[in-house]
Amino acid sequence: MFFEGSEKKIEVVVSSTTPSLRQLGDGFWAAIVASANAEILSKMSNAYCDAYILSESSLFVWDHKFLMLTCGTTTLADAVLLFVDKLGENAIASASYQRKSESLSHLQASSFECDLSRLREKLSGRAYRVGHLDTHHHYIFCADTKAQWCPPQNSCELLMYHIKGDVAKYLRSDKQSSRGIRDMLRLDCLFPDFVFDDHIFEPFGYSINGLWNEKYMTIHITPQEKGSYVSIETNLHFTQGSFNIFSDLLNILNPRSWDVIGFNTEITSEGFPACISVASCSLPITPSDTVYFNQYHQQSNEVLIPESL
Amino acid sequence: MFFEGSEKKIEVVVSSTTPSLRQLGDGFWAAIVASANAEILSKMSNAYCDAYILSESSLFVWDHKFLMLTCGTTTLADAVLLFVDKLGENAIASASYQRKSESLSHLQASSFECDLSRLREKLSGRAYRVGHLDTHHHYIFCADTKAQWCPPQNSCELLMYHIKGDVAKYLRSDKQSSRGIRDMLRLDCLFPDFVFDDHIFEPFGYSINGLWNEKYMTIHITPQEKGSYVSIETNLHFTQGSFNIFSDLLNILNPRSWDVIGFNTEITSEGFPACISVASCSLPITPSDTVYFNQYHQQSNEVLIPESL
Repeated sequence: MFFEGSEKKIEVVVSSTTPSLRQLGDGFWAAIVASANAEILSKMSNAYCDAYILSESSLFVWDHKFLMLTCGTTTLADAVLLFVDKLGENAIASASYQRKSESLSHLQASSFECDLSRLREKLSGRAYRVGHLDTHHHYIFCADTKAQWCPPQNSCELLMYHIKGDVAKYLRSDKQSSRGIRDMLRLDCLFPDFVFDDHIFEPFGYSINGLWNEKYMTIHITPQEKGSYVSIETNLHFTQGSFNIFSDLLNILNPRSWDVIGFNTEITSEGFPACISVASCSLPITPSDTVYFNQYHQQSNEVLIPESL
Repeated sequence: MFFEGSEKKIEVVVSSTTPSLRQLGDGFWAAIVASANAEILSKMSNAYCDAYILSESSLFVWDHKFLMLTCGTTTLADAVLLFVDKLGENAIASASYQRKSESLSHLQASSFECDLSRLREKLSGRAYRVGHLDTHHHYIFCADTKAQWCPPQNSCELLMYHIKGDVAKYLRSDKQSSRGIRDMLRLDCLFPDFVFDDHIFEPFGYSINGLWNEKYMTIHITPQEKGSYVSIETNLHFTQGSFNIFSDLLNILNPRSWDVIGFNTEITSEGFPACISVASCSLPITPSDTVYFNQYHQQSNEVLIPESL
């Protein structure tokens, strides 16, 4: 059973004069989510943020910003367009739309190029592809910023491909539990003080959102042996006191290859498992924002198991 | 300008009682080629084989075997189906259909799965995917062999991605010539005694077929900087006396990554540029045939150039 784990992502900041996005209510956000062909499964809140677990990934809504990640064959560009329609272009202080390379791009409802031409009917902006087409690559569209200055957003992502070992086996088993997964990933230790909301999918798959003040974290696991993928994204710094969240997760999940993406954050490889640095790039995406991409691959040879079709 | 260099390939052996395939004539082969949405550009022959340069790659026809490679958005499965229709299923001693992963698979007319279900309406057989979906992978369908024994076919392929350096620059320039390309690739030295037929495409691209008795070689070059790809395939052994054809071409073309595929031939990495062995697989595809896959990647980090969209 194939499931496209790789995510599309939108991050929109609205102007300071726009009323709080959280006040738009669950019905508003349910409509935004539905436009992308996903649905809301659960919600948790703290003083700063509403965090929704979706049928495909996550939505975080702060007073003046929202972040939505979706995987599978969702149509996230439609969500951007609906949001701009509802609030008006002048409310947008910054907007970015991203898409990671898909394993089976011919099963997607649209290509990034199609999404881009539709987005550009409403928002002018720059777009790039980073990475070669025959391997992991990332598309990013960034709307031209309006006169109003928008504070730089800091976040980092770790995308892990082909996890192996005992934790991977557990994530593919029918004996997994929410508590078991959190313990194996050491989330209480890596994200102390965070409050979590999580969901186990049938027959496989796991999503978790975490909140601590204005900080968020989200992990999505597509454990299928034939194309496993685990992503984590957070606006917490990846180093926390004596430990490094990313290198700890890499050592737990043991992926064959992984990409790290830092928004206004350079992510060091200290503590990473033995690997080669395959490729890297720093991309100044707006006058005040830089995105850092790094791709890594394990050094050892993998004996491939042919898949019978 | 993007061009899908990665190839689809068919190799069909007919029974010893079937009249010579070469006697079917150019009109027959032009119709087979047209069914795949390609056309014949030129032809050369020796006592054993007719070799055609196509608008997308190559066709080789021996008395009891043919081999056709096509790239771009060609529909090579249609050529298999037309051939089986014309000659009848009983004429087929062995047949394989292969497809390499495409960079932009959503631009293809069909997926391998679609091709497979159509092929299986006429030919029963086994099919496999080797390699992960998020990087280079290869699909292969092999028809069940009939009672008649078919001698093992030996051949090897080298697929090179993202070539760099002076030869790559020359292949992208408007000053290239057939003689210049042959000299840079040292083809007269690597394939002594071969007779060649080649074609330079506009604005880029190069195809060459070579024949020497029953031996063939073919090289196809898609030099575009944003997704360059060079493939070579031959039934000559990759080691020839004091030199190794594959390692020589790797050192000349300097690709970032490469795959080698051997049909009943294990290809050693002696003389390869500094690299890691990423993955490998040996696949017994019929009782008498084994396919060997190996993927390699340069050890050094590559600084990626973002592509503006």
